[in-house]
Amino acid sequence: MDTPLYQRLADHYRRAIRTGALAPAERMPSVRTLVRTHRVSLSTALQACRQLEDDGLIEARPRSGYFVRPLHRKAMLPASEPDPGRPLDPARYVGIHDRVSDFIAQCERHVTSVNLALAAASPAHYPAEALKQAMIRAVRAKPLMLVDRVPPLGHPELRGVLARRALELGMNLAPDEILVTHGCIEAVNLALRAVARPGDTIAVESPVYFGLLQILESLGMRALEIPTSPLQGLSVDALELALRTHPHLRAVVVVPNFQNPLGCVMPDAEKARLAALCERHQVALIEDDTYGMLCDDDRLRPAVKSWDHTGNVIHCASMHKTLAPGMRLGWMTAGRWQSRVAMLKFAQSRHNEPLAQVAVADYMGSKAYDRHLSRLRRQVKIQREQVAEAVARHFPPGTRLSMPEGGMLLWVELPGQRSSAQVFEQALAQGIRIAPGTMFSNSDRYNHFLRLSCGQTYTPQIADALRTLGSIVANAG
Amino acid sequence: MDTPLYQRLADHYRRAIRTGALAPAERMPSVRTLVRTHRVSLSTALQACRQLEDDGLIEARPRSGYFVRPLHRKAMLPASEPDPGRPLDPARYVGIHDRVSDFIAQCERHVTSVNLALAAASPAHYPAEALKQAMIRAVRAKPLMLVDRVPPLGHPELRGVLARRALELGMNLAPDEILVTHGCIEAVNLALRAVARPGDTIAVESPVYFGLLQILESLGMRALEIPTSPLQGLSVDALELALRTHPHLRAVVVVPNFQNPLGCVMPDAEKARLAALCERHQVALIEDDTYGMLCDDDRLRPAVKSWDHTGNVIHCASMHKTLAPGMRLGWMTAGRWQSRVAMLKFAQSRHNEPLAQVAVADYMGSKAYDRHLSRLRRQVKIQREQVAEAVARHFPPGTRLSMPEGGMLLWVELPGQRSSAQVFEQALAQGIRIAPGTMFSNSDRYNHFLRLSCGQTYTPQIADALRTLGSIVANAG
Ligand SMILES: Cc1ncc(COP(=O)(O)O)c(C=O)c1O
Ligand SMILES: Cc1ncc(COP(=O)(O)O)c(C=O)c1O
Repeated sequence: MDTPLYQRLADHYRRAIRTGALAPAERMPSVRTLVRTHRVSLSTALQACRQLEDDGLIEARPRSGYFVRPLHRKAMLPASEPDPGRPLDPARYVGIHDRVSDFIAQCERHVTSVNLALAAASPAHYPAEALKQAMIRAVRAKPLMLVDRVPPLGHPELRGVLARRALELGMNLAPDEILVTHGCIEAVNLALRAVARPGDTIAVESPVYFGLLQILESLGMRALEIPTSPLQGLSVDALELALRTHPHLRAVVVVPNFQNPLGCVMPDAEKARLAALCERHQVALIEDDTYGMLCDDDRLRPAVKSWDHTGNVIHCASMHKTLAPGMRLGWMTAGRWQSRVAMLKFAQSRHNEPLAQVAVADYMGSKAYDRHLSRLRRQVKIQREQVAEAVARHFPPGTRLSMPEGGMLLWVELPGQRSSAQVFEQALAQGIRIAPGTMFSNSDRYNHFLRLSCGQTYTPQIADALRTLGSIVANAG
Repeated sequence: MDTPLYQRLADHYRRAIRTGALAPAERMPSVRTLVRTHRVSLSTALQACRQLEDDGLIEARPRSGYFVRPLHRKAMLPASEPDPGRPLDPARYVGIHDRVSDFIAQCERHVTSVNLALAAASPAHYPAEALKQAMIRAVRAKPLMLVDRVPPLGHPELRGVLARRALELGMNLAPDEILVTHGCIEAVNLALRAVARPGDTIAVESPVYFGLLQILESLGMRALEIPTSPLQGLSVDALELALRTHPHLRAVVVVPNFQNPLGCVMPDAEKARLAALCERHQVALIEDDTYGMLCDDDRLRPAVKSWDHTGNVIHCASMHKTLAPGMRLGWMTAGRWQSRVAMLKFAQSRHNEPLAQVAVADYMGSKAYDRHLSRLRRQVKIQREQVAEAVARHFPPGTRLSMPEGGMLLWVELPGQRSSAQVFEQALAQGIRIAPGTMFSNSDRYNHFLRLSCGQTYTPQIADALRTLGSIVANAG
């Protein structure tokens, strides 16, 4: 064989990239590593890299080395934009409970081997060991917390840490303005109960997180779905129209950063417009920033709350996706409804037990938390690229996908109005769980969409599942 | 001095009983101990005891030795019985929030040195050390619980233990019928939301736990107060009348065992009648058994749920008062509303985080829990006797008091329509916090009552506070 050494080396890595062993966005082994691992000269290693770069397979980033480039997915179109002027569906009482029960019942009839429906990262991505140590420290230091009165609003240590961390999101909060809750879900419940009553109409994104539809249904409120762009988030233009035609709109709920299911982030200018618009119309703005910390690039997106000057924005957030899915901690700051929210929290579940709060405050106040966040962001970003790449390769032509810059979700638009309900059922029969688009709206508008989670460690099993899914979609009616 | 030795010994203990150093219901040192401590003969010790017995100061209990007898409090009349035929106040939207805020605001303006307003026992009465160990064991054994998905409805281990423990209360429940909640408060919220809507009317006891009034207010429901006996609890006759005049009554909430604030227990026959009556009228019966485990005599009172054959009773309970005030754990079983309640729980706060549940299951499944309960019951019983005795001694003649057989509360009826609001303010000025009767009703019917907690270790400071309180009451208008 007279293939030059550098080319054989390049081929070796070309195969790795093709099989996915080296995933898009992953770092190539450094030139030094190549030299050491393959016992080649520096110039051979450099030549191999340049060859891969010329082939468009990897790209150099200043001072960071080479990274694998996304391949197929760059060829996909982003998900379709909604028409912000489309006539709105009427505000409706939500009937999501039946859809979700049905979904769960169907899931339970099958053994699931790959769960792509879960909006959470693998347990391995979270700092269980450090949290365990923090719990042990906290309970050793103050065992009486287990049997003494619960501090009101949340433990002062945690509220202090949260107030400090909120600065990075552009919010200036006193610890006293923070209320600790049982997850973001409880926070959103309290926010809605504070500003609206049963029968009232609430504007939500479309598509929207089905958990929010469940909350609205359980509170007997109506949802008005506002067109939402896969790239720019809630259409403020469409909301403005809706406010004109629905003068009794009580509140708007928005997930401005890495929305579920779209993954979109609202541009700063739109966030500012949204805050001002709601203020002008005296409509409460409830912001759910569950995914805010999960940006790819360590550049935090500001909260809409940071444009709020009158207390019209209720900001809700969570430690669920970023730190500890098993601890059920969230928090909120409720602006001008703060005392009403505190009253409702007390009447609904009393204040949160302190132990977990102290442990989490300890961890969140440390540098280890920042290191964990960077790691988690990198990990989720790579996994998102991997899932997207697999979709691009295995799903039929015409599949569309917008690439979020954070979060752990991908919103896939199937070509030719294929039914995601059908795809869901067929996938389930093969042990693969996905979230069909129908779960993200009161309407059937998203029937040809599906949501894939990128939170799980990307295993060969997941790679296989995505290939299988691709052929199910290709053959679906 | 020729006072015989046995008489000097008797005088010594007579003084101790008078000062309260030896409290009512407390055990006298055994005859052997007297022999050893005072270096007297067995016959001298026996003679001294017989003398105290003849004086009515102590009483012998078979195989347990001598106990200090209650003195003054036996002379007090029980609190007045309500007239079960009195015309009901109209069902009303609750306005308790203002009263409670006002109460809290007033409390916050004063330094409190003795808190008799708190319906909880001293932290020292709870097994903090054992719970700490159980927490550490649980987090060491399964640190992934902190970062993994939360098991639905509650952790299976805890639900198993609760189902076994429920047998003692006469309930036969499968673990699957149990839902773990954030305290009894969340359970009662979910129960009310499951069976009723805003605007609906709910029958409650009168006087009633103000926490329940807060819940009703926060849910926009109306309260209909049903006369309740300080001895026998909710008047089923009065409820029957109310059901005739209020055909749209949606639910009844009852605290059948050691009611807050009365401390009363419904007789079994009344519990059975209540269950049957609600069933017949198709009105949901919500039972709050927060204090059920706190019986003086280790004889558990059956839950009303044990008379339920059709799923019409929702049973709610808590580990707050009996095990761990700082852990915020409660549970419920919702009969025919079970799946609706599970849906509401999921939409309201998701299911409870597992770690604390595993630790509590570990402890509640052990013999140590039974030992703790016996200790706590004995302790609280003695403290209740001590507080009652102090009330009997220091409050003006005409003060009335029913003696509960469990729980940690005393409901004191002041003579001559004295205002408990005034007593509250004057006590507060002296650093003593009590709960005025006005907080236990929508009406002003209980303005001349106050609730005293007996949960705290009976210190000389508390003894002093009760003396002070007595003179405040004596001088009140
Ligand atoms: C937008 C959004 N909000 C809230 C939640 C849940 O929040 P938590 O688990 O903190 O209650 C989720 C989880 O899926 C979510 O996607
Ligand atoms: C009758 C009654 N129910 C419920 C509660 C509170 O229950 P938890 O702390 O378990 O939410 C109390 C506490 O004061 C109470 O007295």
